[in-house]
Amino acid sequence: MAQSNLWFTELQNENLSIGLRIEKTIHSERTEFQQLDVYQTAQYGKLLVLDGCVMTTDKDEFVYHEMLAHVPLHTHPNPKSVLVVGGGDGGIIREVIKHPSVERAVLAEIDGRVIEASKTYFPQIAAGLSDPRVDVQVVDGIRYVEEHPGEFDVILIDSTDPVGPAVGLFSKSFYESVHTALKPDGLMAAQTESPFVNQELIRRVYGDVARTFPIAKLYVAFVPTYPTGMWSFTMGSKVHRPEDVKAVRVEDTKYYNLGIHHAALALPNFVKELVGE
Amino acid sequence: MAQSNLWFTELQNENLSIGLRIEKTIHSERTEFQQLDVYQTAQYGKLLVLDGCVMTTDKDEFVYHEMLAHVPLHTHPNPKSVLVVGGGDGGIIREVIKHPSVERAVLAEIDGRVIEASKTYFPQIAAGLSDPRVDVQVVDGIRYVEEHPGEFDVILIDSTDPVGPAVGLFSKSFYESVHTALKPDGLMAAQTESPFVNQELIRRVYGDVARTFPIAKLYVAFVPTYPTGMWSFTMGSKVHRPEDVKAVRVEDTKYYNLGIHHAALALPNFVKELVGE
Repeated sequence: MAQSNLWFTELQNENLSIGLRIEKTIHSERTEFQQLDVYQTAQYGKLLVLDGCVMTTDKDEFVYHEMLAHVPLHTHPNPKSVLVVGGGDGGIIREVIKHPSVERAVLAEIDGRVIEASKTYFPQIAAGLSDPRVDVQVVDGIRYVEEHPGEFDVILIDSTDPVGPAVGLFSKSFYESVHTALKPDGLMAAQTESPFVNQELIRRVYGDVARTFPIAKLYVAFVPTYPTGMWSFTMGSKVHRPEDVKAVRVEDTKYYNLGIHHAALALPNFVKELVGE
Repeated sequence: MAQSNLWFTELQNENLSIGLRIEKTIHSERTEFQQLDVYQTAQYGKLLVLDGCVMTTDKDEFVYHEMLAHVPLHTHPNPKSVLVVGGGDGGIIREVIKHPSVERAVLAEIDGRVIEASKTYFPQIAAGLSDPRVDVQVVDGIRYVEEHPGEFDVILIDSTDPVGPAVGLFSKSFYESVHTALKPDGLMAAQTESPFVNQELIRRVYGDVARTFPIAKLYVAFVPTYPTGMWSFTMGSKVHRPEDVKAVRVEDTKYYNLGIHHAALALPNFVKELVGE
């Protein structure tokens, strides 16, 4: 078969792009909230795109999903009630329910079409959504958080980039609502873009989280399909410290392990400077 | 000024590309060994390209150069005599001579035009090449290593990709020559591509190094302009272990620190599997 000459090219910022050879377009639709496309790539299997930005691929999704879920969930000694804001593909939920302590995991995703597309085209990512402990809510995550004070041990914010529908998920008032929605020893983590190209955002979000929670920590992971391949996550915690984790409770992971948990917390000097560490 | 519409696009493999907006072409030549281009990028400052592949940029060069130099140099308790094979831009040498114990650093680069281009267009990277401890040799690194048995504490292999002039630098017979060129407690490190896309190469090189040296260790760093952003280095050591490093001897680094030294040695599960760790 001749090689396809179709390329998906994401302009990651105005000066930087990533290109993925596309074997075919599998699905395209305009949802109520965004443009949603699914492609078959030659390198990374199927690719989910929202508003032109890479969300996830079959072959590298494990890094982002494991790292946004397992670093905070292991930081909490006994997470029973977990909320995922965004994350309609289900990848974070799949990782959350690997923790035996979890009794209830709520997914609050604003765009029901993302959930449906993931179930259809990324069944291995969406697998956890049918688990009896999982409560899928097609709602505005900001409002959901405001309406559920004191309910969660861990809240994970799996947002798109800080433009369009996700802007509110990067605001100080949202982190304050998250603080209120957490139990007295609860903690949160959010995806917070690349330390190489989103320095202003990271500095601002880290500052807002550090003013809202007594403990704030940035951590990083290798995500090849996101800009620069270096991705950051910001944790805010009322009591528990990620540095104190001594053992891992889940075993079927492709990226996360106890060494990686602590390695992710070790920041290069230029990133330490960003967050004043 | 209108934004340039010129892009440098590197086909990182047949299915994957990175694009950098180019403000202007600064220099282009065909050397005896390869095509050499220098561009001004909008994102990363000046960019050095050899045979179409990104070698280094002003803004992210510090990661690769610090990590190929400082992890092995700190692993050796008292490195005095260091050889860099390849690395004509001078970035590794600049980091090597930050170590106060280093009395002599030899650069064995096959293409003298790379050295000259770096001195002209990347003076902050080439800065160390004029240090009195540095001996710049425009020679075939493979032959140089063969002709200097028992001479070095540390040998660093800063090669281009394993195609064209650099193929020999990824062979078992070369690692054996390196072993012979090292003192009885010497050690080596080489750049060994991305764990996401060069898995066969990493598996083979790691195996060859592990069969040549009693101690072999893979480590990783975030290099945004290299394929997938996750880059690996393979260390081979006769006596000293990178895990044993307790303190850092250099302070003016932008990436490397003691936490990063150990974090770089912590591998994700899928990379551990590659090297049988």
